[in-house]
Parts: sequence; C-alpha cells; structure tokens
Amino acid sequence: MSYKAPVDQIRFILDHVVAFSDVAATERYAEATPDTVGAILSEAGKMCSNVLAPLNRNGDETPARLENGKLRSSPGYADGFQAIAEGGWIGLASNPEYGGMGLPQALNMSVAEMMAGACLALQLNPLLTQGQIEALEHHASDEMKALYLPKLISGEWSGTMNLTEPGAGSDVGALTTKATRNDDGTYTITGQKIFITWGDSDVTENVCHAVLARLPDGGKGTKGISLFMVPKFLPDDAGNPGVANSLKVVSLEEKLGIHGSPTCVMSFDGATGWLIGHEHKGMAAMFTMMNAARLGVGIQGVGVAEAALQQAVAYATERNQMGPIIRHPDVRRMLATARAEVFAARAICLACAAALDLERATGDAEHAARAAFLTPIAKAYGTDVGWRVADTNVQVHGGMGYVEETGAAQYLRDVRITQIYEGTNGIQAMDLVGRKLSDGGDAAMRLLDEILDTAKSAQSALPELANQLWQAAETLREATLAMLERDLPERFAGAVPFLTAYARLLGGAYHLRAAQAGGADHLALARVFMARVLPRYAADLVEAQAGLADLTGIDDAVLAGEFAS
Amino acid sequence: MSYKAPVDQIRFILDHVVAFSDVAATERYAEATPDTVGAILSEAGKMCSNVLAPLNRNGDETPARLENGKLRSSPGYADGFQAIAEGGWIGLASNPEYGGMGLPQALNMSVAEMMAGACLALQLNPLLTQGQIEALEHHASDEMKALYLPKLISGEWSGTMNLTEPGAGSDVGALTTKATRNDDGTYTITGQKIFITWGDSDVTENVCHAVLARLPDGGKGTKGISLFMVPKFLPDDAGNPGVANSLKVVSLEEKLGIHGSPTCVMSFDGATGWLIGHEHKGMAAMFTMMNAARLGVGIQGVGVAEAALQQAVAYATERNQMGPIIRHPDVRRMLATARAEVFAARAICLACAAALDLERATGDAEHAARAAFLTPIAKAYGTDVGWRVADTNVQVHGGMGYVEETGAAQYLRDVRITQIYEGTNGIQAMDLVGRKLSDGGDAAMRLLDEILDTAKSAQSALPELANQLWQAAETLREATLAMLERDLPERFAGAVPFLTAYARLLGGAYHLRAAQAGGADHLALARVFMARVLPRYAADLVEAQAGLADLTGIDDAVLAGEFAS
Repeated sequence: MSYKAPVDQIRFILDHVVAFSDVAATERYAEATPDTVGAILSEAGKMCSNVLAPLNRNGDETPARLENGKLRSSPGYADGFQAIAEGGWIGLASNPEYGGMGLPQALNMSVAEMMAGACLALQLNPLLTQGQIEALEHHASDEMKALYLPKLISGEWSGTMNLTEPGAGSDVGALTTKATRNDDGTYTITGQKIFITWGDSDVTENVCHAVLARLPDGGKGTKGISLFMVPKFLPDDAGNPGVANSLKVVSLEEKLGIHGSPTCVMSFDGATGWLIGHEHKGMAAMFTMMNAARLGVGIQGVGVAEAALQQAVAYATERNQMGPIIRHPDVRRMLATARAEVFAARAICLACAAALDLERATGDAEHAARAAFLTPIAKAYGTDVGWRVADTNVQVHGGMGYVEETGAAQYLRDVRITQIYEGTNGIQAMDLVGRKLSDGGDAAMRLLDEILDTAKSAQSALPELANQLWQAAETLREATLAMLERDLPERFAGAVPFLTAYARLLGGAYHLRAAQAGGADHLALARVFMARVLPRYAADLVEAQAGLADLTGIDDAVLAGEFAS
Repeated sequence: MSYKAPVDQIRFILDHVVAFSDVAATERYAEATPDTVGAILSEAGKMCSNVLAPLNRNGDETPARLENGKLRSSPGYADGFQAIAEGGWIGLASNPEYGGMGLPQALNMSVAEMMAGACLALQLNPLLTQGQIEALEHHASDEMKALYLPKLISGEWSGTMNLTEPGAGSDVGALTTKATRNDDGTYTITGQKIFITWGDSDVTENVCHAVLARLPDGGKGTKGISLFMVPKFLPDDAGNPGVANSLKVVSLEEKLGIHGSPTCVMSFDGATGWLIGHEHKGMAAMFTMMNAARLGVGIQGVGVAEAALQQAVAYATERNQMGPIIRHPDVRRMLATARAEVFAARAICLACAAALDLERATGDAEHAARAAFLTPIAKAYGTDVGWRVADTNVQVHGGMGYVEETGAAQYLRDVRITQIYEGTNGIQAMDLVGRKLSDGGDAAMRLLDEILDTAKSAQSALPELANQLWQAAETLREATLAMLERDLPERFAGAVPFLTAYARLLGGAYHLRAAQAGGADHLALARVFMARVLPRYAADLVEAQAGLADLTGIDDAVLAGEFAS
C-alpha cells in the first residue's frame, strides 16, 4: 500500500481542463506562474507520498485518545502536522499580510487533495484551520486578525468549527449554547457541542474554537446566532498561550473511521470568548467557513478515491486468478469506471476552485454564481465518488478487502464521513435546487452554455462524443427549466438525482476537453466515461422529475414495514 | 435499536407474489399448509426478535477470539445457537429421515432472512451447516449420512466449507491441499485453508469440515479435486466426538464486520478425512453446498436490509430537524426507495427458493432452469440491496450514523461481506451471462414470458404500471438476444449491469403482483419502485451493451493514473 501523489494528473487538469490559466492571468494571482505551480505541486506531492501516507495506518490502528482529559494524537501525527506547517501549506491561499502565500484556491485544493489521499484523518486538522482563517480574514476585526492569523497560518495554533449540538445538526438554528456580554468587551460562553473535529490537539500549542452561540437578545432560529473565538488558552499580552480557558473535551466518539481524527464532545463552562464579526450575524461568518470547507470536503473524497484506486489497480495487477485479474473484463470495468469518475470529480472540484479564484480576483458576480452553483455538486459528487471508488477497491480485493490488514477497508470507513459532514449530500442537493436556482436558473444556463461550447469545439474532431454531450446538456436544460416550475418540496424530492445528473454532464464536458487536449490516453478514458457514466443522467432525470406524490402517498407505517391488508 | 421480524411481509410474498402455493400443492411439500407456515414464521420470528436480535451488538463489541488455540465465541452466542437448534430451524428443509422437517426452501429462506436480520454473524453458523447437510444428502454414502446428518440437523455439530486458499479464491482449481489414500479407506489431508467461517466453534460439540483437496492422481484444475469430511473430533464407535483430529485454527482474521463470526485460517496437518461422493468429483458436491449458500447469502442481504431500514425509519420518526425528518422529501425518498428495494429483493429470493422447491418436488427441468437462472440474481441483488439500505441507514442518521454507538455502522460493516463471499457479485453476474444463458436463452425467455403475463393481467386495473413493465420486459428480451450474440469476454464486460437490469424487471413484476393482490399500501410502494428503481434498467442496458472495446482500449498505466502526454 503506497500512495503516489497524483501531481501530473492534477497539473493536466489545471493546464487543460479548468479555467486556471484565467486565474493565473489575473493581477491577484499573478504569482501563480507555471514554474511556481509546478514547484508547489511537486513539493507538496513529495511530502504527501513520503511523509503523510506512511502515517495513514497509524491513525486507524492507534486512534487519538484522551488521557486524563488530554488528547494524545496517533503516532507520528505531530511530525506529519509539522511537515504540513513547515511546508507553508496551511497558508497557501491565505493573506500574505499575515504570512500566507496568497495563491489560488485551485492550487490550495490540489494540495488538499493530495494530503487527504495520503492521510485523511490528519488532513482534517489543516482543512478546518483553513476554514477558520478564511472566516477571520472576512469577518474579524483587525486586532483579532493580527493576533490569530499569523499563528493559524504558521500552524502554531489550529482552528475548529463548533456548530453541532445534540438537538441541532442540520437545523443549526435550534442551538442552545449561550453567550453573555462582559464589561470588558469579552463574552462568556456556556454550552455543549458535539462532533467537533480535532476539538483538542497535541500537535499545536493552542486550539482556537469558533463557536456558535446565542446572546440573550438573540432571536430564535439562525438569525439570533453569533460567532465567537474561544481559544483553549487565552492569549497573554505577548500573544502567546496563557491561562487555560474554561472549556474541556468531555469525550471522544468511537467512529466508523478517521480514527486518527479526534471527534470531540466539547463543554464550554463559562469560557471566555471574543466576537467574530457582528452580534447576531454569526451565520454569515460560519457560512464562510462552511463554504470553504464544503469544497474542501469534496476534494477529500477525490483524494481518498485516488488513493483507493491506486491500491485497487496495484492489487489487480498482482493478483492472479487465471491470469492477472486486471485483465478480467468485469474487474477492468470497475477500475476503468473508477478512474473515469476520479477524473470527473477532480475536474469538478478544481473548476469550482477556479471559479472561486476568479470571483475573488475580479469581483465578478458571474464567477461568484458559478462557484456557488458548483460547490454543492463538488461536495456531493466528490464524496460520492470517494465512497464508490473505496467500495470498488474492497470489491476488487475480494475476501482480502474485508480483512483490515490490507487497508482497503480503512479507506471505505474513513471516506464515509465525507458524505455526511459539512452538510449531508442530501442537503447539498437541496441547496442546489433551492438557493442555487433562486436566480431563476441564470447560473445554470450559463454553465450549460459553456458546456455546449465545449461540445461545439469538439464537433469536428470527436463528433460522436460531442453529440452525446450536446444532447445531455440540452436535456439538462429542459430538466432545469422544469425544476424551476416546481415548488420547493417537489424540488427537494428530486434534488439528489438532479445534482448527480449535473455531475455526470460536467464530468462529460471535462473529459471531452481532456480528450481534445491530452492525446490518446485521455480520449480512451473519455470513451469509458461517455459509455458507462454519462448515459445514466437520463435515469437520474426520470427520478428527479418523479415529483413528491409517490412519496407522500406512502404511509409511514409502510416505510416501517407494516402494510394494511 | 430493536429488530422486529417481518413475519407479515414475508407471509404476504409467499401467499401472493411467488409460486409458494404451487409448492404447497405438491405431494412432497404437502405438509406446508397455511397453518404450518403461519406457525413456523411466527415462532421463528419471535426467536429472532426476542432472542437473537439482542445478541447482535455483543458480537461486534466482543468479537470471537482464540484463547490458547481454542475458540471463544461472543457473549450469548451459545444460548442463541441453542435456541436455533432447539427450534429445529437448522433442519427445517432437511430430510425427515435424519431428523429434518422436510419443509420447502422458501420457508427455510424466510426463517434464514429473519435470523440474518437479527444477528448475521451467528446466523452464518447454521447457514453453513445447512449447506453441508445438503451436500451430504446429495452426495454422501448412507453410512456417512447416518453418522453425520442427525448431529448436524439437531445442531449438536456444525459444518464448515473449506475451499479458499491463499492462491485459490475465485480460481478454486488452483488449490494445493493434498489428500492421500489410507489402507482403511480413510484419507490423510494436509494443507492450509483461509477465510473459513466458523472454522471452530464452542457452541457445538464437534465441527465438521468439508474440505476440498487433491489426490496424487487428481488432474490439474477443478477436475482433479475431491471433497472430504474432516471432523474436528473423530467420531468414536458410538458416533460421539472422540480423539482430536490433526487440524487446528492458526489464527482469526480481523475483519471490517461480522466480528461475532470467527473467520479462521485452518491448518490440516495429516488430518483424517472421509471421502464425500466420488474421487475427483469434489466440485460437484461443493457446488451443491455453494448453490444452497448463494441463495442463503442473498437472503442475508435482505435480512440486514430489513433490520437497517427498520432502524432508519425509527430514527427518522424521532429525529426532529424542523419537524421529524421522515417528512423531509429527500429522507422520505431514501426510505421509500429502500422499502421498495427490500420488497423486490425479498420477492426475488423467495421466487428463487420456490423454483428450487418445485424443481425438487417435480423434477421438472424448467423449474430447475428457473432456479438456476434466479440464483445469481438473488445473491447479487439481495446483497447489493443489503449494502445500499445499510448505507441509507447511516446517511439518514447523519453524524450519528458514523459513530459506532448507534449500531447503524455495524449493519454496514457486517453486510459488506455478503457481496464478496460465495462468489463475488461480479462472478454471479458472469455466471448469469455465461452458464445461465448457455441454454440459448430458454430460461430467460420463459421468465420474460411470465413477466409479460403479469403485465397482461394487470393491464385493465393498473394500465400505466402494466405498460411500463411490459416495455421493460420487451427491452430486456432484446438485450438478452443481443447478449447471446456476443462472445464471453464481451458478455462479462456487461454482466453486472445486465444482472441488475433483470433484478429491476423482476422487482417490478413482483411489485405489480403485490399491488394487484395487496391493496393500497402495496400499490403505493409499487409506484415508488416503478418511478425510481425500475426505470434505471435502461441505463443498465446501455452499459451492458457497451462491449469490451473501451475497456481493452485503455492502458493499465492509465488505470493507475499515469497518462502519456
């Protein structure tokens, strides 16, 4: 089991498939020259292959644990985190004013993919820290930025996101954690949070909790929520970790996977906090964190998929059952489909990142809408592909996939969380058909137009594939217009297959671009995608348009298995 | 988490959907009266709900282990096994001459489903024992039958299947375990076997290993293999366990799931064995065991799916996020689809069992061909549904599905093996398009004709659903004829989606029968299946007919992620 960071595959997509050259052509990202991009991918890739990947089994076999209330991370994780911090990878896309590199998200997500493929449980720590950095960059006061950003960007401190409570998961507005104002401008935070990833850490000297809580005069629901910075150790006058704050890790969850990532129940017992942004406007700042994290989670799925697929191909090459099983048509079908889906998912995530970069570099609303539209697709499809490919890896291993020794099962167990956290994939799909179509479909139509352009440009060289893509785009256009006619509950009933259909279409478009630019190998892979993955959009759309009536027409008792006779 | 055995759902399918009344009308199964069926389902159901289901978490939390080379099973498993044995459930379908009840497989599989749903890891023990009983009934000498069958049927002894070796999994013919002839008519067995389920047991007083091995004059491949009975303790003159045989459990595998089921590496070090059947004809006897076990594994998938779905519905009913989440369209879509698929998978398995029963009761070749055709579909689709529904359960639970405490993850981990063992689902599909179409498609065409009859009979009452089914059956007919035109490698490349398309069609037919017979609830569920599950057959067939060219057109290096540029 040895992970090889897919530097060349990523570089190809940046250079030939997504709008990265447009990003690099902006003033903001002028430093993202081909040489810099090459150096960064290559350096980060080496770290992932050589330093992080060897730690992946450690986390699974020796989970993070609590010892007298203190976290002990898995063997080697401290060194791994140190390597990430020293490489400057945490601040790759952060503000140079505070020590970041100011490079594009597309590059940051490329590095994130490799780190996640190498060691998902550890990579969660910088991923969440990056989310907090971004929230602070957008919403914090200058003082808070000056105090926290350099420490977070350097990796001396890490950041967490404290959102979920036992009764408030997808329904964030139901949270009950309380905040009260103190005379010195600070706040006192009391409440319990669950599912806090890396809620404590012995790989950084301080842990900065971004905590959602409600002030006494905060209204009900999400509008009365504020966001607070609640550090594990209160910074002293020199900005170093001082007195311990009144908070603690109550327990760690025993989870299906990512055992190396401590998932904490946190208790804030009159802890001292500082407001991030404005009172009662915490959700805006939290959404900044979550939006960044959503794409980051999508790319986690891609990373694990790549790692699992590499393992599957290596096993299928070695394993002989009447010849190497990689030559068996059904095994080859599984592997080729997986490779085609990994390409598609990676391209979708990087296209989304490039749109985010163009939004930031140009302020253009169309780029913003593109990024917003692609984010739920990148999150859901990236993690669905992660799950499917990890599953393929287990199946290709046969009985050996079911024993833990090979590590195939670990990828499956680890990646399963990505379809759940940062908003379940169902919630991503509801976001797509709800908020992301609330512009009357403008962003969707612009995306479809661009896909038609892709089809047109391939028409003479690859007429069959181009026509297939064209047809799919036109069908998606009709389906999108039909979706706009429906009310929200009806849209929600078809949201997941609708999102999947878009992912197939986007994947087809990116494969076609790759086939035009990349020679025989990319054309061969595009053919697999167009034969086996894209065509299922039609079935997705049948279900997307099935409406709500059959679902409301069925009794709860029947769902439970009790039929009236 | 409390499992309720789905007695009424099973009874409905036996009474209204599959050919069980034909089975009960035969002389052989005349005892399967409605009263007997009702009593058996009800008694077995009670045991499953009340005795077995409470043991399910024990096996996961306290796995079977080796202590000084002896197996210690999970807490309560001995009592659970005792309850199964005392109920007579092991010999439900076995020869009454040796203590069995001689009832139909359809009833046996119904009970097996409930036991698997209640406690999969424990149910594996009687499932394998039943497979051995069947092999002995068909292939053993009268002396061997008289010695072993009463003990196996009563549950005093248990049976295992020793097939796999490190270099011989799907390629059974590669095995290297040796057998030599002794002067007293016994054989000496030497070799190592892996993945031996319940290879040792402290819940029975003896463990009977059915071991595949090669005699010195056995030819290469599967044709030179013989099957031997190699008991843990050699039976003494009174037929009781006597001297220990020269065999041992070397180690247990650490697995993704079914922790309560010990998966053993077995070493036979000059062990004494007795021939089952004829020399060099071991594969025939092993296939008897495997065929029985394949349907049994399919029904395991259904059992776990039912248990997982019950848990998902219970959670979705209780969990409030802006109202109970069972009312959220996307959650309801997941649950309704799962319920519709559980019905379909159960009906397919029981239809297969009924065909087996009719084959045995009548000797009719058409019934035999029907059973043979349905077996790989039942195995693959039953276990695929098990996996999908267990996955749905995790997703419906959100973050709570990822923590082990709820047990949702256990169903997912446990059921994953069912897609692998007794022939991976890929191998099932290859069996379907290969051996099961080697009659020129006769069995397939008869099945399609029967489905058209179902459609016809529903034409006036439910014209829309009937037309949809008709269209699907006609399309499958064309696809089957097209499949017959292809060579084997091409068939294999499309085998899995081809099998899935058949499962969807069969599910649609059984739903339609249920809707005609079962009133509003079954009609409502049929509508869900026909809107969301059946229509995907078209996409399956696109892939089934995609051929092999795109797969052979792609380099191994590309599968590994290395593209020439």
